[in-house]
Amino acid sequence: MGCQVDLNSDLGESFGVYTLGQDEQVLEHITSANIACGYHAGDPNVMSRTVKMAADNGVGIGAHPGLPDLIGFGRRHMQVDPQDVYHFVLYQIGALAAFARIHHTELNHVKPHGALYNMASRDPEIARAISEAVYHFDPQLILFGASGSELVKAGRQVGLTVAEEVFADRTYQPDGTLTPRTQPEAMIHDPEVAARRVASMILERKVQTVDGTEIPITADTVCVHGDSPQALLFVHKLRDSLLRQGVQIRRVGTF
Amino acid sequence: MGCQVDLNSDLGESFGVYTLGQDEQVLEHITSANIACGYHAGDPNVMSRTVKMAADNGVGIGAHPGLPDLIGFGRRHMQVDPQDVYHFVLYQIGALAAFARIHHTELNHVKPHGALYNMASRDPEIARAISEAVYHFDPQLILFGASGSELVKAGRQVGLTVAEEVFADRTYQPDGTLTPRTQPEAMIHDPEVAARRVASMILERKVQTVDGTEIPITADTVCVHGDSPQALLFVHKLRDSLLRQGVQIRRVGTF
Amino acid sequence: MGCQVDLNSDLGESFGVYTLGQDEQVLEHITSANIACGYHAGDPNVMSRTVKMAADNGVGIGAHPGLPDLIGFGRRHMQVDPQDVYHFVLYQIGALAAFARIHHTELNHVKPHGALYNMASRDPEIARAISEAVYHFDPQLILFGASGSELVKAGRQVGLTVAEEVFADRTYQPDGTLTPRTQPEAMIHDPEVAARRVASMILERKVQTVDGTEIPITADTVCVHGDSPQALLFVHKLRDSLLRQGVQIRRVGTF
Amino acid sequence: MGCQVDLNSDLGESFGVYTLGQDEQVLEHITSANIACGYHAGDPNVMSRTVKMAADNGVGIGAHPGLPDLIGFGRRHMQVDPQDVYHFVLYQIGALAAFARIHHTELNHVKPHGALYNMASRDPEIARAISEAVYHFDPQLILFGASGSELVKAGRQVGLTVAEEVFADRTYQPDGTLTPRTQPEAMIHDPEVAARRVASMILERKVQTVDGTEIPITADTVCVHGDSPQALLFVHKLRDSLLRQGVQIRRVGTF
Repeated sequence: MGCQVDLNSDLGESFGVYTLGQDEQVLEHITSANIACGYHAGDPNVMSRTVKMAADNGVGIGAHPGLPDLIGFGRRHMQVDPQDVYHFVLYQIGALAAFARIHHTELNHVKPHGALYNMASRDPEIARAISEAVYHFDPQLILFGASGSELVKAGRQVGLTVAEEVFADRTYQPDGTLTPRTQPEAMIHDPEVAARRVASMILERKVQTVDGTEIPITADTVCVHGDSPQALLFVHKLRDSLLRQGVQIRRVGTF
Repeated sequence: MGCQVDLNSDLGESFGVYTLGQDEQVLEHITSANIACGYHAGDPNVMSRTVKMAADNGVGIGAHPGLPDLIGFGRRHMQVDPQDVYHFVLYQIGALAAFARIHHTELNHVKPHGALYNMASRDPEIARAISEAVYHFDPQLILFGASGSELVKAGRQVGLTVAEEVFADRTYQPDGTLTPRTQPEAMIHDPEVAARRVASMILERKVQTVDGTEIPITADTVCVHGDSPQALLFVHKLRDSLLRQGVQIRRVGTF
Repeated sequence: MGCQVDLNSDLGESFGVYTLGQDEQVLEHITSANIACGYHAGDPNVMSRTVKMAADNGVGIGAHPGLPDLIGFGRRHMQVDPQDVYHFVLYQIGALAAFARIHHTELNHVKPHGALYNMASRDPEIARAISEAVYHFDPQLILFGASGSELVKAGRQVGLTVAEEVFADRTYQPDGTLTPRTQPEAMIHDPEVAARRVASMILERKVQTVDGTEIPITADTVCVHGDSPQALLFVHKLRDSLLRQGVQIRRVGTF
Repeated sequence: MGCQVDLNSDLGESFGVYTLGQDEQVLEHITSANIACGYHAGDPNVMSRTVKMAADNGVGIGAHPGLPDLIGFGRRHMQVDPQDVYHFVLYQIGALAAFARIHHTELNHVKPHGALYNMASRDPEIARAISEAVYHFDPQLILFGASGSELVKAGRQVGLTVAEEVFADRTYQPDGTLTPRTQPEAMIHDPEVAARRVASMILERKVQTVDGTEIPITADTVCVHGDSPQALLFVHKLRDSLLRQGVQIRRVGTF
């Protein structure tokens, strides 16, 4: 243990006639799929197809609940009551679980999407509401949250197994948050550099921040993207590089 | 058996700040609650509250999936692909089942709503899609459909237990369909008359149509309404009258 | 001038089968109607009916654009881009203007709703986006904003006539903001007291805050509610009391 | 006159993060743009951008109102009340007109979308409701409808200028309707053949149907598509071929 990591990606984000992402290709590279549940993206047809594809590829199926904001893709912070969050997260998990059931598989994890993920990283009440929704639905589900976040803490408090998530293509601030995309040094474009950083996170449990200091970090799962040919290539190379560095790529929960 | 019937009503139709129905009062009179799942009415907060209220009253919990048409309350026919129906019915059942789970109860039945119910009464493909969604989600669920309808046939074909539904406050045409509300003789306003008719449906398995002829009918469950004080009074009186005529009021599945 | 004030109320908040408010009754008491435009409430049928009712009562017609959040009734703050705000406010004004046109009348004013109103009170960029949307649509429209707010400033800057709004049934903090509803002294329940306060705002241009100090305030229009029998009675009494104190009730723009 | 035709295409069908179509390229080839209004596709940001692009290219701006069915892209027939249609068409025209106004241009035409277009072709009441919405909004607007359809008749009856529309890439049945796409001979893939057919429709006012007979047809405007590279190439070649055959390509209303 310690020498393995999960690769997760957001999938099933098409809606009606609108298609998004290259789900088929990215599924070949990852071990966990976060599948949109109809609030910020996805529809029942897409959900069913995506669950089936993930299952057929042996990829872990996760609910990816978001804010009720299709037009904003769930990326805009909203002032939401924790009780509302508890209920709409349950709603989305339940809906996705139905598709897991008809395809003779099961949910493996839950990862909140976009603004909900960010809100849950900082707000203990939102983090608690999500954690309880997951736990009450199924205490065996694994909760994905940003490494060191309030969500990770709340998940552990309610009794869930949590997977701490890191970002391979992003730099970190000294306080452990991601460098905002508006800043020039936010992104890491070289998959070799990204792989070395991820390997260091896994093996040494630390990461170098933008000011050169090192901070502790836990990397159970790495978020990757498949929404462009470059993104796919990045994942492909990242995966190869991790394997070469002796890091096994395995689904969370099977370590 | 034969001397018992289920009383069902549509509940949980509020949405956000909008309230509809008198769910608390009607729950005292019925044995099965059809709970809206967020497509034609209902939201996650309402769903949770309604499932809990039904469970607390010992009333059977049913998913009440509808067409994706909030503004039309699911009452407008839509040209929908059976595969779409299969998926969006699954989505809604799954979402409601999550609330049953957190309130330590289970779904008992599924009844399609409004236009979807009517479409499934006549269209074998829609009927089949709904039946398969229910069966694949949970073969123990009871499917509610109009007595003698395509939905009832399809439900039996896929292997479900079905409850044939009759309407206490409506008259029937010689072909077994309900008299359209646009016609003067469509409604039965006297609960005594309604109760006698329902008792006859249960005991003799037939009903007198608007032209005086009798047709066979099966009454496993009776649809009642609680959206007005008069409606509530009607249910109250119907129930009393049925009891006086020796008909027991019991939840479907416990006969 | 100075001895007159406008009374405005939010109308047309029904949606589909859901009804809200007592629009017909409140229209008898007010001079400006803020009509929901389908984002946080309202639908095209409701909009048409409400515009017609307002016109028939000689009440000024205003667009009441809100955030795209039907389930939250536009009351939840959202992180929205000013450019998005500019566009969705225009969309809503344009839609309502179409109903004014078919009923042979015109828009008189625009008042943002709920969270958008509150965001525009404090955030100069949001205030600017709304003001420009109104001005670019029609520079003759009157913009309603909280007295002393950023919205009032931005409206004047872009060249609009603004109406500064006060609340008859709410107390004020020393900084000019409303006392949050969560605090016990937030509401004023006595219409006589409310009327005296409004008269003082109009005639002396100041209001006593919760700590006893007086702050300057401008009262061009007073927000009233008609969503309950008590609310209606309050408006009725407020109006009578204002008239007795020599304040004329006239539509903004006709002073 | 008679030797000219309008080329129209559906534009502005993106929504939030979802992009659809190649609006910039298709705008170079057409004379009228039918712009989605937020019901079946489009959002306020997209609407504004598309109106501006069309205006910058000198292309006529048309509202393209659809059914309230984003997930079905407005392609599914719905049982809608003519009064509802009247109101939601007005809503959409009004919203789009706001964007025309801020970009210092005007609406030129209205063409209903998808299932609404098909329903209006056959159903005189739906056709009438749409025609009245357009006329009441602005009697100068040109109504686009299928050649010989109920919509064309209703539009003329209420006093509108109508543009009869033909399809360059589709074959016709002896009754004047389009051959369903499910049939092998439905599509015309050769732009030369399509151009000859369109030229014949314009010059001789007739078209050869799938069974070889000729039927009368009126071609004021030709519907073309730009949602794929092949579609764009088809439009490009169709346009060239029409010009070579002496047909001028001009915006409806400028003949």
